[in-house]
Amino acid sequence: MPQNIVVIGAVALGPKAACCLKRLEPDSKVIMVDRDNLISYGGCGIPYFISGDVSEPDQLQSTSFHMLRDKKFFLDTKDINVMTNTEAISIDREKKNVLVQNFSDGKRRELPYDKLVLGTGSSPRRLPVSGSDLEGVFLVSDLNKAIAIKREIAEGKVEKAVIIGAGAIGLEIAESLADLWGIETAVVEIMDQILPGIISPNMARMAQYHLEENDLSFYLGEKVERFEGKTRIEKVVTNKRTLNTDMVIMAVGVTPNSDIAKKAGLEVSANGAIVVNKKMQTSDPDIYAGGDCVEITNLITEKPGYWPLGSLANRQGRIIGRNLAGGNAEFEGAVGSFVIKLFEISVASAGLSLESAKKEGFDAISAFVVQFDHAHFYPEKDLMYLELVVEKGSGQVLGIQGLGNTGDGMMGRISAVAPLLKYKVTTEDISNLELPYSPPFSSAMDILNALGNTAENILAGRNRVIEADEFADWWEKRDNGDTLFLDCREWGNAQPFVEKYPEHWKSIPQGELRTRLAEVPKDKKLVLICNTGVRSYEAQITLDQMGIRDSYNLQGGMAALKKWGQPILRILKS
Amino acid sequence: MPQNIVVIGAVALGPKAACCLKRLEPDSKVIMVDRDNLISYGGCGIPYFISGDVSEPDQLQSTSFHMLRDKKFFLDTKDINVMTNTEAISIDREKKNVLVQNFSDGKRRELPYDKLVLGTGSSPRRLPVSGSDLEGVFLVSDLNKAIAIKREIAEGKVEKAVIIGAGAIGLEIAESLADLWGIETAVVEIMDQILPGIISPNMARMAQYHLEENDLSFYLGEKVERFEGKTRIEKVVTNKRTLNTDMVIMAVGVTPNSDIAKKAGLEVSANGAIVVNKKMQTSDPDIYAGGDCVEITNLITEKPGYWPLGSLANRQGRIIGRNLAGGNAEFEGAVGSFVIKLFEISVASAGLSLESAKKEGFDAISAFVVQFDHAHFYPEKDLMYLELVVEKGSGQVLGIQGLGNTGDGMMGRISAVAPLLKYKVTTEDISNLELPYSPPFSSAMDILNALGNTAENILAGRNRVIEADEFADWWEKRDNGDTLFLDCREWGNAQPFVEKYPEHWKSIPQGELRTRLAEVPKDKKLVLICNTGVRSYEAQITLDQMGIRDSYNLQGGMAALKKWGQPILRILKS
Repeated sequence: MPQNIVVIGAVALGPKAACCLKRLEPDSKVIMVDRDNLISYGGCGIPYFISGDVSEPDQLQSTSFHMLRDKKFFLDTKDINVMTNTEAISIDREKKNVLVQNFSDGKRRELPYDKLVLGTGSSPRRLPVSGSDLEGVFLVSDLNKAIAIKREIAEGKVEKAVIIGAGAIGLEIAESLADLWGIETAVVEIMDQILPGIISPNMARMAQYHLEENDLSFYLGEKVERFEGKTRIEKVVTNKRTLNTDMVIMAVGVTPNSDIAKKAGLEVSANGAIVVNKKMQTSDPDIYAGGDCVEITNLITEKPGYWPLGSLANRQGRIIGRNLAGGNAEFEGAVGSFVIKLFEISVASAGLSLESAKKEGFDAISAFVVQFDHAHFYPEKDLMYLELVVEKGSGQVLGIQGLGNTGDGMMGRISAVAPLLKYKVTTEDISNLELPYSPPFSSAMDILNALGNTAENILAGRNRVIEADEFADWWEKRDNGDTLFLDCREWGNAQPFVEKYPEHWKSIPQGELRTRLAEVPKDKKLVLICNTGVRSYEAQITLDQMGIRDSYNLQGGMAALKKWGQPILRILKS
Repeated sequence: MPQNIVVIGAVALGPKAACCLKRLEPDSKVIMVDRDNLISYGGCGIPYFISGDVSEPDQLQSTSFHMLRDKKFFLDTKDINVMTNTEAISIDREKKNVLVQNFSDGKRRELPYDKLVLGTGSSPRRLPVSGSDLEGVFLVSDLNKAIAIKREIAEGKVEKAVIIGAGAIGLEIAESLADLWGIETAVVEIMDQILPGIISPNMARMAQYHLEENDLSFYLGEKVERFEGKTRIEKVVTNKRTLNTDMVIMAVGVTPNSDIAKKAGLEVSANGAIVVNKKMQTSDPDIYAGGDCVEITNLITEKPGYWPLGSLANRQGRIIGRNLAGGNAEFEGAVGSFVIKLFEISVASAGLSLESAKKEGFDAISAFVVQFDHAHFYPEKDLMYLELVVEKGSGQVLGIQGLGNTGDGMMGRISAVAPLLKYKVTTEDISNLELPYSPPFSSAMDILNALGNTAENILAGRNRVIEADEFADWWEKRDNGDTLFLDCREWGNAQPFVEKYPEHWKSIPQGELRTRLAEVPKDKKLVLICNTGVRSYEAQITLDQMGIRDSYNLQGGMAALKKWGQPILRILKS
């Protein structure tokens, strides 16, 4: 039987739910309401609109066949009515209607519904410090704000910019300002790494090094105390310094828009997210909600999770659409998968980082592998850097993250693991993961397989590892004299280091180790180094066999140190 | 306790098993035996060596850190003894020793073993026709043969070449000859499509069209009757024609090398593959086997499967290595994942094609989707073409295949689905597949999600589809007058077709369909066409709603026709 459907919010989830329902139940009537004049746009494209990669806002709002998704589009092609510039004020669950008000004429109207969909989204947080209302201080809350930011830049008002927050949106905006507009851009972040909570400190350091090489400045572990300026922003004052700037963009997270749900008596979590079941129903079964305004299940921790991502909103929209039409579709939850372009590299992840895993109470370790994306003998190839987070004992894979030049290849590796996480796969499954193989695209043992193997060897205690940050620390303290850095590569590679640091750096190529064991000191901690950590692992096994067990394999080897920007490598440049 | 391990075969599986064991049990002794002088090379790289992408055979035989994996390498770095130019003659399972013979001095020797590993590989099939022993007729059986082929080409002996067999190896070799050497290359295949058994006829046609545009010629459905020439090959005679040629390369499949196993009384299948259990043990628990000489379980059909792939050999090698060392590792089987580079495109697959699925008794359908790999508004993007094979009723995904310009991106999409197949996922799981999203790498609803949705809609009977080959057939018969081709795109796109074929081609943009329904004939079969099949699906829903149900949505739309090389599109060029 045809129904009346009202949808609040017309950006990602709302249109998806509405269109899906209309395809299944063409005779039902749908009204979609949005505060904004611009609707149904790809919000994740905003940084690329600001950078100029996407030249017009229309492009974010168009279909792949270049039709603008405006009111007329929804009416003509989807038979859906849209009320723009219209706020939903309140829901009367008894009478089953929504009170809305048009911003232009102030008129109020009641919209009756059989089923209601809340796609109210989220709002970016505003730092509660003085000066946050100065001209030139922006939140990237919607496409109209992005248009305003781009206008100021195009008018030449911005030579310097400060981004507050080194999460995904902050970094994407920072890149867009620096890369295509040449703006001197600094990023201030209260945590002591970029992309906190998403990737490990070591991988974050690698990404940061790349961003710094592309002229971004970072002030990590700094708290913004106030913004200063007469009418327009002039200075950002942190607990450590003052930065002059012409523009500030705050990207310090978002909060779900759930006021209307709360007022209507629907269940809302302590974090302000609307609570839904797997069918995406709120505590009122006739009211569905999804997207940035709801919390969903984290399939790894099995606790509530919050991911304001357009991709999840779209998937949930389709679930809601089907259930509106009497279906029985379920959205199980998510593991949180993520990818970001940072100049020439991409960083991607799925599931938990080691730090998040520990915070969630998992006894976990991580394995780090550097390997080519394609067969090492194939001419076109690039190094990839992957980290796998696994639980001790069970060997369950809790997360994966990666960094590399090859965006599509990185995306492919993370995509191969992300959908498996909910099956509670182990390192063994990753070791045997069956990926298509051909030299132009992968290796016979792909980096993912190698990652599974390495994690297994670490869990079994066969591979005792350190990471780039521990290397840096031990190298710093090398004059204590208790550590020897043993280079397992061929002499040509080791030579410059041995010549510069004869006391600390020793060369024994892994193939000669068995015959040159007498040269290995028995009273020192050994740091084993090769190009990527493979030969140094073999060296460790040989040393173990000979009873020399105080050795540590540098994961990712020199490739990791290089990506990390380790000062020791400067001797190679001189 | 240290063991004596003998490994027969030193290309892929053998070295992997041997090295893995030595890392776990450094005190065990390993002897590896191979007929060849060249060992431990990346056989899948042979086409790239022939093409010149890989300039020296050494590169295929080297580690990623440029060390040649020869006898000395295995001895020095792995503590493994290798006997090259040595054939294993027979196995005495009672006495537990292997009789070997050196090709150079003819000497025989018995090698005692506690555990034996068979990595005897496979041999390419030779067509049983006359002239197959002429000079210039090659099998690509090993790296030495590839060196011989390349030498002849480099010496200028080859202006024309004929490849027999349009499987993966045949096509890779064909590309290598045509692309970098400019050799006039023809491919003869007995089946009526390229990559038979791997991808669907429609996708094969698309790949073939691309290969033809790169100057390869194809003779499909033709049987080679004989080769002619005095001492050197001059002609290939098929049942339909005679092709002049300077070289023939036969790539008509391989057979497992299992003679030694059979002679020793080990269980061997009807197809000649050695039978192993999940631990990769033969019917003698002290003898392991893996790689191209064994059959494994097809995880989709749950029947024995045979995939002579280096990637699987490597994974199995590691399983054997661990079990040799007293471990309990299992190799479950495979779904068969595949990728190939064909000039600028890649073709990839995992699991069953629709045709293979039907042959295996599944009642299955396939869905075909064309979509950009990245967000459609992002400037760098490319169309991808994916096909999903699903079982009716259960909705279980049986296979996926794809074609596109973006090799790494294609590899990523197939990699995301291949490891899931064994979990018997459904279209629903593919619709909700959680992939990382960012506009430079993917879409909010990735092509994989769209593929799941489309398959679901087809299964539910909501989306009634035809493919490019049916389109071609119906278009051919257009003068029967019972079919109208209804173009759902905007007028500008439809105009040239309507003007050229006013009787057959009609334009009603999808957004105008509701108001122009009167123009739609009720007495004709309607073929609905748009750019990629999305709008034509919406049009179909609208027509259904209005009671007009004899309509068929062209899957992949004009993009599919274009990729297929449909003659109708020539009017766009004139």
